[in-house]
Amino acid sequence: MKINENYLKLEKNYLFIRIAEKIKDFQAKHPDRKIIRMGIGDVTQPLAPVVVEAMKKAADELAVKETFRGYEDSGAGYDFLREAVSEYYHSFGAEIPASDIRINDGAKSDCGNLVDIFDDSNIVLVTDPAYPVYVDSNLMNGRQLIYADSDESNGFAAMPSNDGYDLNGEKIFPDIIYLCSPNNPTGAVYTKEQLAEWIAYAKTHQAVILFDAAYEAFIQEENLPRSIYQIDGAKEVAIEMCSLSKTAGFTGVRCGYTVVPSELKTTASDGTEVSLAQLWNRREGSKFNGVSYPVQRAAEAVFTPEGQQQIKENIRYYQENARVISETMQELHIPFTGGINSPYIWFKCPNNMDSWSFFDKMLEEIAVVGTPGAGFGKNGVNWFRLTAFGDKDATIEAMQRFRSMLEK
Amino acid sequence: MKINENYLKLEKNYLFIRIAEKIKDFQAKHPDRKIIRMGIGDVTQPLAPVVVEAMKKAADELAVKETFRGYEDSGAGYDFLREAVSEYYHSFGAEIPASDIRINDGAKSDCGNLVDIFDDSNIVLVTDPAYPVYVDSNLMNGRQLIYADSDESNGFAAMPSNDGYDLNGEKIFPDIIYLCSPNNPTGAVYTKEQLAEWIAYAKTHQAVILFDAAYEAFIQEENLPRSIYQIDGAKEVAIEMCSLSKTAGFTGVRCGYTVVPSELKTTASDGTEVSLAQLWNRREGSKFNGVSYPVQRAAEAVFTPEGQQQIKENIRYYQENARVISETMQELHIPFTGGINSPYIWFKCPNNMDSWSFFDKMLEEIAVVGTPGAGFGKNGVNWFRLTAFGDKDATIEAMQRFRSMLEK
Repeated sequence: MKINENYLKLEKNYLFIRIAEKIKDFQAKHPDRKIIRMGIGDVTQPLAPVVVEAMKKAADELAVKETFRGYEDSGAGYDFLREAVSEYYHSFGAEIPASDIRINDGAKSDCGNLVDIFDDSNIVLVTDPAYPVYVDSNLMNGRQLIYADSDESNGFAAMPSNDGYDLNGEKIFPDIIYLCSPNNPTGAVYTKEQLAEWIAYAKTHQAVILFDAAYEAFIQEENLPRSIYQIDGAKEVAIEMCSLSKTAGFTGVRCGYTVVPSELKTTASDGTEVSLAQLWNRREGSKFNGVSYPVQRAAEAVFTPEGQQQIKENIRYYQENARVISETMQELHIPFTGGINSPYIWFKCPNNMDSWSFFDKMLEEIAVVGTPGAGFGKNGVNWFRLTAFGDKDATIEAMQRFRSMLEK
Repeated sequence: MKINENYLKLEKNYLFIRIAEKIKDFQAKHPDRKIIRMGIGDVTQPLAPVVVEAMKKAADELAVKETFRGYEDSGAGYDFLREAVSEYYHSFGAEIPASDIRINDGAKSDCGNLVDIFDDSNIVLVTDPAYPVYVDSNLMNGRQLIYADSDESNGFAAMPSNDGYDLNGEKIFPDIIYLCSPNNPTGAVYTKEQLAEWIAYAKTHQAVILFDAAYEAFIQEENLPRSIYQIDGAKEVAIEMCSLSKTAGFTGVRCGYTVVPSELKTTASDGTEVSLAQLWNRREGSKFNGVSYPVQRAAEAVFTPEGQQQIKENIRYYQENARVISETMQELHIPFTGGINSPYIWFKCPNNMDSWSFFDKMLEEIAVVGTPGAGFGKNGVNWFRLTAFGDKDATIEAMQRFRSMLEK
């Protein structure tokens, strides 16, 4: 048996596992120091009460023969949840029929699994910096990657290059384009005009856009798009992934959704028209069996008026943390992006320090954990990500420690 | 963008989706007829009370900041559950450390995703008949398949061929071998001696065995192995997948586990030794984020003494159904396998009918749904699968209808 040797070319450790190991070592050496974690983007506020009640009610249904549920017929998600997601899209001006939505166990799974439906010869465009899963899940299939620089010059929101991208000395155009807005890690948000430009570019080059909207709930400014489908023409070129992880504290509950519009079609080599949704449904039909019923009921509760009100309180709590971090950066005259329409603050390491060295410095000197920008790409080597998902008091305390470290 | 054209070579519909459509059409035409479903292997008994309580308790924990849990550190499953599974293995004589176990959202997902870590050039051996996911998830990657006949001559338990298998006129040996015991669809169970033979064969040909033990809980005879790891040498050649779907009624709750032993190693083309567990953990680290916390607590409860007692009542309920079906077959002198150590009964269609025709006949004449053997491979074209997962009264009623259909 031969292994898939593409795996041997990957970084040995996934970014967050490497960070977890560093924390473990530090804590073992300094058991009395209180670490404040602002690294991995994990939430800390409890689930909304209406969500917990819905999950418990569903668990009770499974205890009784008359209301017991086994397999979902399709595995695409129950209609009650797909329709709730469709209504949610409608609430901010994107019209997505329930039939174009598949429920999943979180955006990360679909983000990795979606590429199964594309040929390994496709050229993949990823912004740099980017969420490492986009890169790794394509390297695993041996796909070649090209990078669109997101840096200070464009406010960390890369725009398409009409000259193409460098690959082995040649100029080349992408087949698959990953975009994430609000961006992880930079917090930058694309405007409608910018997304329209990407959509036009994808059409010109017959590319597909994989749009990661996992942080849409953090957008506060009315004019910024929460979904790529708020822009005309997106349905013919874009797949969108979204998640309840950050929106409703579902990092441990696991539920998200992916939209593959029925309008999204391409032509096979024999000239037949192929629907990407049909390929995706076929993939999922064989390799996935749907999301836990009580989890789907919990997710449904998120989209009720009461659920929306309760989760918005949590989001405001994190936004207040983001404000505390942003203000600290402003006061210290540290260049940064994000923090307003995003739970992430992306800042330049003081004295242009290397980001892993700055990680070690913060851990050693003030016991605050962040994420080194280098983990997201070469444009992050002197940048650093902090998340606003922590406890309020801990965030304030971390920023006091941060200030004293730099003013020392 | 180019699609993965291997998808176009797949059967257009996954077996169970095709069956669902036929049922829907029939029900639309005959709204007053009461269909008895013995097709898709879905359970009908409610969850054990201890499982439901555990899930609700976990949901309550997520409602409180102090006990809230977000991401699992590793995504491999919480230690409490991995250790419970390890203890469970120990109870029937297989020693599997918790660190070799990964918790998943059901065997189907892992069964499909596991092949990502193997090169597409591997030759895959599947028994015929077999669970269609083994075939489809390899065709999706363009792998070539060879088939080991499971038929009346070997009691539907194929043994390895030392002469190799036919592929495009050549004799060839497999790199990846799928085995399922108790078998879906035939209900046949491998003995320890038979599995030892497969293990020796895999060693000789440097192949890996993917062992599907999803139905182990239905084994009643003491001497039959519930896990391939009850046989010496298995850890060096076999990965095992198991599930709580049928064991504890988790088809809608979604939880299973996969064992990749640390002893399972191979050599990369550059001569370095590679651990398959490390590759699998790397795959899952990028493409999976763990199972819902309340689901893991529910699964943990299955392995408590109280949980084991409660689920065994359900299993006995299904075993009684299997007895009813088996006795009907015996009385009608219909050749069959399974039904004793398995929830499946695999029988020969009367008058050697084609299995899809027999499916239509049963649906039209007696409104009983089964699964046509043809859906599992060429050796199933005249065979048929019934499941014992139904309601007791409905199973008795279905067998009465079946008898009258054949005695007409």
